[in-house]
Amino acid sequence: MTIRPYVRRTQFYETDQMGIIHHANYIRWFEEARVDFLDQVGFSYGRARTEGIDFAVLGVSCEYKSMTRFQEEVAILVGIGALTPARMTVTYRITDAATGALRVTGESRHCFVRSEGLRPVSLKKAIPALYEIFAAQTRPPTG
Amino acid sequence: MTIRPYVRRTQFYETDQMGIIHHANYIRWFEEARVDFLDQVGFSYGRARTEGIDFAVLGVSCEYKSMTRFQEEVAILVGIGALTPARMTVTYRITDAATGALRVTGESRHCFVRSEGLRPVSLKKAIPALYEIFAAQTRPPTG
Amino acid sequence: MTIRPYVRRTQFYETDQMGIIHHANYIRWFEEARVDFLDQVGFSYGRARTEGIDFAVLGVSCEYKSMTRFQEEVAILVGIGALTPARMTVTYRITDAATGALRVTGESRHCFVRSEGLRPVSLKKAIPALYEIFAAQTRPPTG
Amino acid sequence: MTIRPYVRRTQFYETDQMGIIHHANYIRWFEEARVDFLDQVGFSYGRARTEGIDFAVLGVSCEYKSMTRFQEEVAILVGIGALTPARMTVTYRITDAATGALRVTGESRHCFVRSEGLRPVSLKKAIPALYEIFAAQTRPPTG
Repeated sequence: MTIRPYVRRTQFYETDQMGIIHHANYIRWFEEARVDFLDQVGFSYGRARTEGIDFAVLGVSCEYKSMTRFQEEVAILVGIGALTPARMTVTYRITDAATGALRVTGESRHCFVRSEGLRPVSLKKAIPALYEIFAAQTRPPTG
Repeated sequence: MTIRPYVRRTQFYETDQMGIIHHANYIRWFEEARVDFLDQVGFSYGRARTEGIDFAVLGVSCEYKSMTRFQEEVAILVGIGALTPARMTVTYRITDAATGALRVTGESRHCFVRSEGLRPVSLKKAIPALYEIFAAQTRPPTG
Repeated sequence: MTIRPYVRRTQFYETDQMGIIHHANYIRWFEEARVDFLDQVGFSYGRARTEGIDFAVLGVSCEYKSMTRFQEEVAILVGIGALTPARMTVTYRITDAATGALRVTGESRHCFVRSEGLRPVSLKKAIPALYEIFAAQTRPPTG
Repeated sequence: MTIRPYVRRTQFYETDQMGIIHHANYIRWFEEARVDFLDQVGFSYGRARTEGIDFAVLGVSCEYKSMTRFQEEVAILVGIGALTPARMTVTYRITDAATGALRVTGESRHCFVRSEGLRPVSLKKAIPALYEIFAAQTRPPTG
């Protein structure tokens, strides 16, 4: 299955007084793209939670390559960079949707937890079908 | 009891590309000041929730009188504008902490709900002590 | 010209610990829908700024009718509620895109200002074509 | 000169539906602490900009060690992890202000740019006094 990039417009309220998109917003965009990725692979975040699993964030990193401004459109390509039964790394590559210019690369590191109590759990045991979906999407980190 | 204004600094990430604090942030500042107000009257938001009560927001309004910029300090004066057993209006008056210049006036309208299920409830019956505290702070809306 | 509602998904980072979309976000959604409205009427915000005009926010108000949650889709209908050469009121009506259930109504009040210096200006004189576009969209406030 | 930790309360609007502070907020807290750091060393961000220098963000990373909740107070210790004439790395260590429990470690990487045009510049040449202040604060990254 080929994942389509998640496309979204930049918003005025995301700008700062330097006239560019404030750098903290990209962490939120990663999350938007991650949720869209789950929808695309056919196992929505809502369904994962219904089945009792949540994705705790262990860490994020973000490299800013060029600036984004208001009324631009960005494309965010999501991949699975690493996967174990207990953890996964999600990778992101943000480009300008019109020109393809590279804007940001980054990753987020997650562990699987029970929705109730947020205790670590093996996804491979808890929801094997979702683990297999992630495994099929695993590829080297981009960027 | 006299309520002290809630004082806070403006943040860089709150600016927008017009070089001023983005107008949506004031709704958040109202909330910060409301939480501080509850602390000052001796009945913290956390305690209200522990006793099973939450404050649903029915409406909010905000009048922008002059612009606020990064690295300014604002003072937010909170009052209770109206109170019934089921509802209350909270008023806000934001001034520049250094000069006293008026920045924003506004209000938020709330109903009292059970923390579990968010169903409306009479605060007067549920937590009479907190109702009395609010009643003692009631005063005409400012601004 | 008929304006289409602006449709967008709710985001996880917009939720709060009550499990609903935090009320301050709707002010941002109003802005998203306002920018989309300008695109639809063929006079983008960017173009207005290029022609030297900006829209200062004088006030906002918002009535919360029912709660919105993560992974819902909302439709935001924008209209011009009032218009003078110097000012306008924009109205918003947010519904659940799937069910049509009313979520939020609100408005924002603006004055027209020069992008340089943010001084008030008559839109009717500064950009008559845009003033006529707004006039054609004027209708009674919804909600 | 010894830098005091920057102390701030968590806000309700920073929570998410997992009942914890949403992870994207820490990037904003880093910025708050960075601005406070500049104030403490006697060379405010505003003054740097007045002298024509800005701090572009090249990258940011964040490790989440334990969860933060509403109505907690955090202490953020800031340091300079690396410094060259053109670039610097700022380190952050966030603890619970009451218990000292470690919450988050992270860093942001910056280059110095002219406020006008955002072009890279040598801070050592542009504002030698500020470069010396940073050099005096350089220490190994924490965490």
